[in-house]
Amino acid sequence: MRILVLNPNTSVSMTTEIAKAAVAAGRCDAEIVCRAPYFGSVAIDSGAESYLAAVGMMDLVARLTEAGEFDFDAVVVAGFGEHGRDALAEMLTVPVFDIAECSAHIAHLIGRRFSVVTTLARSIAPIEDRLRLAGLDAHCASVRACGLDTATVDSDPEGAIQSIVDEAARAVTDDGADVICLGCAGMSGIAEAVTAKLGVPVIDGVAAAVALAQAVVGLGLSTSKAGVYAPGPENPRSHWPISHALGLA
Amino acid sequence: MRILVLNPNTSVSMTTEIAKAAVAAGRCDAEIVCRAPYFGSVAIDSGAESYLAAVGMMDLVARLTEAGEFDFDAVVVAGFGEHGRDALAEMLTVPVFDIAECSAHIAHLIGRRFSVVTTLARSIAPIEDRLRLAGLDAHCASVRACGLDTATVDSDPEGAIQSIVDEAARAVTDDGADVICLGCAGMSGIAEAVTAKLGVPVIDGVAAAVALAQAVVGLGLSTSKAGVYAPGPENPRSHWPISHALGLA
Amino acid sequence: MRILVLNPNTSVSMTTEIAKAAVAAGRCDAEIVCRAPYFGSVAIDSGAESYLAAVGMMDLVARLTEAGEFDFDAVVVAGFGEHGRDALAEMLTVPVFDIAECSAHIAHLIGRRFSVVTTLARSIAPIEDRLRLAGLDAHCASVRACGLDTATVDSDPEGAIQSIVDEAARAVTDDGADVICLGCAGMSGIAEAVTAKLGVPVIDGVAAAVALAQAVVGLGLSTSKAGVYAPGPENPRSHWPISHALGLA
Amino acid sequence: MRILVLNPNTSVSMTTEIAKAAVAAGRCDAEIVCRAPYFGSVAIDSGAESYLAAVGMMDLVARLTEAGEFDFDAVVVAGFGEHGRDALAEMLTVPVFDIAECSAHIAHLIGRRFSVVTTLARSIAPIEDRLRLAGLDAHCASVRACGLDTATVDSDPEGAIQSIVDEAARAVTDDGADVICLGCAGMSGIAEAVTAKLGVPVIDGVAAAVALAQAVVGLGLSTSKAGVYAPGPENPRSHWPISHALGLA
Amino acid sequence: MRILVLNPNTSVSMTTEIAKAAVAAGRCDAEIVCRAPYFGSVAIDSGAESYLAAVGMMDLVARLTEAGEFDFDAVVVAGFGEHGRDALAEMLTVPVFDIAECSAHIAHLIGRRFSVVTTLARSIAPIEDRLRLAGLDAHCASVRACGLDTATVDSDPEGAIQSIVDEAARAVTDDGADVICLGCAGMSGIAEAVTAKLGVPVIDGVAAAVALAQAVVGLGLSTSKAGVYAPGPENPRSHWPISHALGLA
Amino acid sequence: MRILVLNPNTSVSMTTEIAKAAVAAGRCDAEIVCRAPYFGSVAIDSGAESYLAAVGMMDLVARLTEAGEFDFDAVVVAGFGEHGRDALAEMLTVPVFDIAECSAHIAHLIGRRFSVVTTLARSIAPIEDRLRLAGLDAHCASVRACGLDTATVDSDPEGAIQSIVDEAARAVTDDGADVICLGCAGMSGIAEAVTAKLGVPVIDGVAAAVALAQAVVGLGLSTSKAGVYAPGPENPRSHWPISHALGLA
Repeated sequence: MRILVLNPNTSVSMTTEIAKAAVAAGRCDAEIVCRAPYFGSVAIDSGAESYLAAVGMMDLVARLTEAGEFDFDAVVVAGFGEHGRDALAEMLTVPVFDIAECSAHIAHLIGRRFSVVTTLARSIAPIEDRLRLAGLDAHCASVRACGLDTATVDSDPEGAIQSIVDEAARAVTDDGADVICLGCAGMSGIAEAVTAKLGVPVIDGVAAAVALAQAVVGLGLSTSKAGVYAPGPENPRSHWPISHALGLA
Repeated sequence: MRILVLNPNTSVSMTTEIAKAAVAAGRCDAEIVCRAPYFGSVAIDSGAESYLAAVGMMDLVARLTEAGEFDFDAVVVAGFGEHGRDALAEMLTVPVFDIAECSAHIAHLIGRRFSVVTTLARSIAPIEDRLRLAGLDAHCASVRACGLDTATVDSDPEGAIQSIVDEAARAVTDDGADVICLGCAGMSGIAEAVTAKLGVPVIDGVAAAVALAQAVVGLGLSTSKAGVYAPGPENPRSHWPISHALGLA
Repeated sequence: MRILVLNPNTSVSMTTEIAKAAVAAGRCDAEIVCRAPYFGSVAIDSGAESYLAAVGMMDLVARLTEAGEFDFDAVVVAGFGEHGRDALAEMLTVPVFDIAECSAHIAHLIGRRFSVVTTLARSIAPIEDRLRLAGLDAHCASVRACGLDTATVDSDPEGAIQSIVDEAARAVTDDGADVICLGCAGMSGIAEAVTAKLGVPVIDGVAAAVALAQAVVGLGLSTSKAGVYAPGPENPRSHWPISHALGLA
Repeated sequence: MRILVLNPNTSVSMTTEIAKAAVAAGRCDAEIVCRAPYFGSVAIDSGAESYLAAVGMMDLVARLTEAGEFDFDAVVVAGFGEHGRDALAEMLTVPVFDIAECSAHIAHLIGRRFSVVTTLARSIAPIEDRLRLAGLDAHCASVRACGLDTATVDSDPEGAIQSIVDEAARAVTDDGADVICLGCAGMSGIAEAVTAKLGVPVIDGVAAAVALAQAVVGLGLSTSKAGVYAPGPENPRSHWPISHALGLA
Repeated sequence: MRILVLNPNTSVSMTTEIAKAAVAAGRCDAEIVCRAPYFGSVAIDSGAESYLAAVGMMDLVARLTEAGEFDFDAVVVAGFGEHGRDALAEMLTVPVFDIAECSAHIAHLIGRRFSVVTTLARSIAPIEDRLRLAGLDAHCASVRACGLDTATVDSDPEGAIQSIVDEAARAVTDDGADVICLGCAGMSGIAEAVTAKLGVPVIDGVAAAVALAQAVVGLGLSTSKAGVYAPGPENPRSHWPISHALGLA
Repeated sequence: MRILVLNPNTSVSMTTEIAKAAVAAGRCDAEIVCRAPYFGSVAIDSGAESYLAAVGMMDLVARLTEAGEFDFDAVVVAGFGEHGRDALAEMLTVPVFDIAECSAHIAHLIGRRFSVVTTLARSIAPIEDRLRLAGLDAHCASVRACGLDTATVDSDPEGAIQSIVDEAARAVTDDGADVICLGCAGMSGIAEAVTAKLGVPVIDGVAAAVALAQAVVGLGLSTSKAGVYAPGPENPRSHWPISHALGLA
């Protein structure tokens, strides 16, 4: 089984971090390939950056397909609350997994109320939006922010642990959460440390998505093409793929 | 990995059928044990039968625990819409999976709107209730009934295919479903045939639950004991385990 | 008019307490009979105990029916948030009343936002679930716990008053409740004292259910058998009634 | 126990009809007084007429209070979906019951999904609004209209039976209702005939409200004055009570 | 373009204040006429006063129509949370605007979560009700009260600023509001001062409604008469218009 | 007042059509500038095309800003259900209006239940999503598709009228809509014809957005920067603006 894990931003260190988490969650027979877009921003902390990332991932998948190199059984979008899964689900016949949604699914399976601890307060609303549209908000006790931006978490995940633990503790005490979801792919790798401090299950989104990708592929299932994820009418498009038009290889 | 799959009713043929579906969905390194309660009804088509089944499964788990024979990494409750998962989650430290909830989780991952096709019309409301309490009703397009009771489906699953296909086709056309969940453990084994006729993904609950059990166990996660699933205060209880009091072995 | 009031647990003192509250709420022409199951637990503080209680009450009703002794115009289930009403509604042609639902109905009639004060925090979620499924959660300001378990409240209701008053006062001040529902049948009898301290109406569930039973019976109405409460298909059942199989008389 | 039943419109025949239904539902020890406002419209089929009725009932209650003649234990507002209950609840210390809300409460107690059959299609939305604000819409399968206006139903209730039965039958078949609420006080008296034809319980709102009034008064409860129903600040008001200013006696 | 702005209460100073705010928001080609009912209360702080105001405005519109003096392109109801818009929408062919709804519409257009700061706590619930029925509650972070009644705000708007600012600041900090709606027509004229202190946009309802009236009239649109706002069946009505029957001119 | 109207796709004819509708809705003192992105697709009928359009509009606004040519009081995004408004709201200090949201706001102001008639069935879900996130779905009776893709509607709006009228008629009859929103910017210009045939108000999104832009700007209000629309942290971004990197001028 081959799984393509997409880091929606262009940070090399975060791509490495995500790959590590994905490989750790993968079964022995799984081959994980982790890639970042050809263009975009080094971290995603706004709606504008998120749209840019969505197009960057679409572009990368288009390039791989064009080159006959798209040879994967599943795709994981490793941005927590970012846009893009629906577009890739239209473009591909293999299933596409979003780490925010996958975290929430796992949280439902092991608890009754989960909270998300993300980076900046400005990312709370987009995450709430993603969960609502995914139909996964009813058991969400809260989305909270640790106050550090994505780049800071990316550059020093260990240093972020205390802020995340503090906010997660508030989610447990004040909001009644019994499961915590780490709300940023850059937090991959610190789940264990946070669990140890809090005593409640803590979910890493990248691991959750890889695990669910393996489950769905193992069931022989993929995205339904009977509804909104059917391939689009392919209206004429200029400068596409953008990375190609930009001469990036 | 050892998974205990519980048939909530006492039908031997359905236990066999469920075991077959569970084994088919299990990875090569998974050991599946399928059991039915010591007492209860041979099929579940009412709230009363469902409560009886919940207690029957609790009893079986208590017996296994008492005898030091509970040696499983996860439990699957193979009743679609039946009660009981929450009680077992309280009793056990390993995670417990319900086939209705697991079907809905998988449906979310591969489509936008799912419908359930169950047995009798009287089971529609309880399934709606389970999905609502599990926070998984927002993307449910409909719960429909094929009109055959559980025993009939159990005794002749092949013969039930046409009724299920007809109702599922209505779900796709009239309700906009792009994924179908088979709403009875007795329907395990006909998913492929229904998919072939409808052209939309069809989910077998037992397979879905086994796949998700493997995913969660693989992630090293289990039921949160920080909330409602903490072990109960164990008030004094008479005639417990009931099967023991009844002299059943 | 004859009303059967069922204590879902096996505590003799709570059965007595419930009977007292029921009789006090009954009209002069009402005959109240209060019964506990043949088996079960002495208090209900978990999902497992609640399912056991549901089956215990089903068993008792089956025994009474079998013996030709079911001669009641209505049944009251005196467990706050416990399972079982729907199963009894299937089994019987007379109406069945649940004290959590009845408390909420009365609360709607006399206020705009009610809070429930129950025993342990672990019982909050099940009560929220019951109200949601009953369609009675929209005006529920909060479900709060006084921190005492059912057995403690049962053994010393007077001693529990202060804890209940404190929590109810928070519901009024912090959650905007203008009516309080006592969330445990064991709290019957202290409504007046709590009202006196808080100055807002306080509802005792047993009294509420008896009053509504009288209202519905007086209207000549009973459970609709046109939907989910129609009698079940009566699949073959082993060891039923359980109390009979256990040799209890 | 003395209950004041208010017909919100000025039709003498409907006042008589309502009084009959109320008396039939009253216990032997209940004294029912039925009154219509001093001014207003002879039937209520619009928002404007409903507001006028609310003020008419406020005026009548103010006149009775002023004259020292308000000597009732409860008030029933006999308009289905009409405004006014909240204003009277502010003005009075005894509890006030609305027939739409009371019908819905009784429907919850005896079924799982109820439908309302009212007069004109234009009254559907206001009834939906009332149920939503009362927190009683979750189990409402539909509000349907028989197509006859209030005056027509008032003048010939028997003649309206067939239209009501037809629409109620659609509610049962198409919307899954297992209980029917008659959505107009002018339909009082035909519940039995409709039940006979449909085989599902049919609720007359006036009877439901009288029964619930008796239940609440019997419990020694009344409107909470701790919230929105506290007496108003009594800003200076001109020409009040209006009927007095109009010289009506 | 001629716009009729209705003050639902009879306070002359508030009518003047509202007129000032409306004129300030009107385009140069707009003619604003501000009127109060012939009868009613000098401020609205209860449901009873609100119903009286609804009838007072209906009466005024009926008088104007009767006299052939209703020559307006739009009507604005300048009561925040008061009843009446739907009745006027039925009576008139020109569009009718409610300041609570219009404030919420503008808030949606410029922010993500708005809070309302109204007068007394008792007005919170009615405002919540209006927003819910208008389908505009999902983005409402909170409705808060500054603790001053309408007459006090009316007589000294400047003096009320600090209380309003304090409560609005809590809405921003505690509830996450990024837009504030002034929840009383008597607060017209202090929006600028509050904005200056809080640094978030503050919406004056009268200005919002005049702006939206101009927008809708400019689009050539008006109230749909295909649904609930179709003219009523005009049942015979006594003493109508009331002000006429009272001999007021 | 200067308003920038953005056509999210690159069709020249649709840009012209949109400009015409915008100018028609603009007041005499409004200057309307209509622009399309430098790159993208000629029509938007999928999630992928919508994300591309969002980035295309962001790019155009960045170019205008960079060049010191962004001199507008408001921006209108003329794509019905397309992404992008939130990103532009972050980037700009002037308010940004989305035609789907603006259509829904106007619909609320003139009716009780609106339906949207869009192009292809695959666009129904994204429009439902936009309305839900905007908090404007509660009064949405339905989103329906006329079955013609955007390019077809764009090339021959007159020819599309009958399909749109047919579907809108179903919305009125079957779903109870009393207002119709034209769910595609390419439908601008046919509102009048559809209104004439249906007899219910029909809203053109471009006109609605221009009218609301004028209203908000007239009120002196703009996007709140206190919440999610605050300017982003501006993480380093490669190849931005893309059109610049592509050498487009």
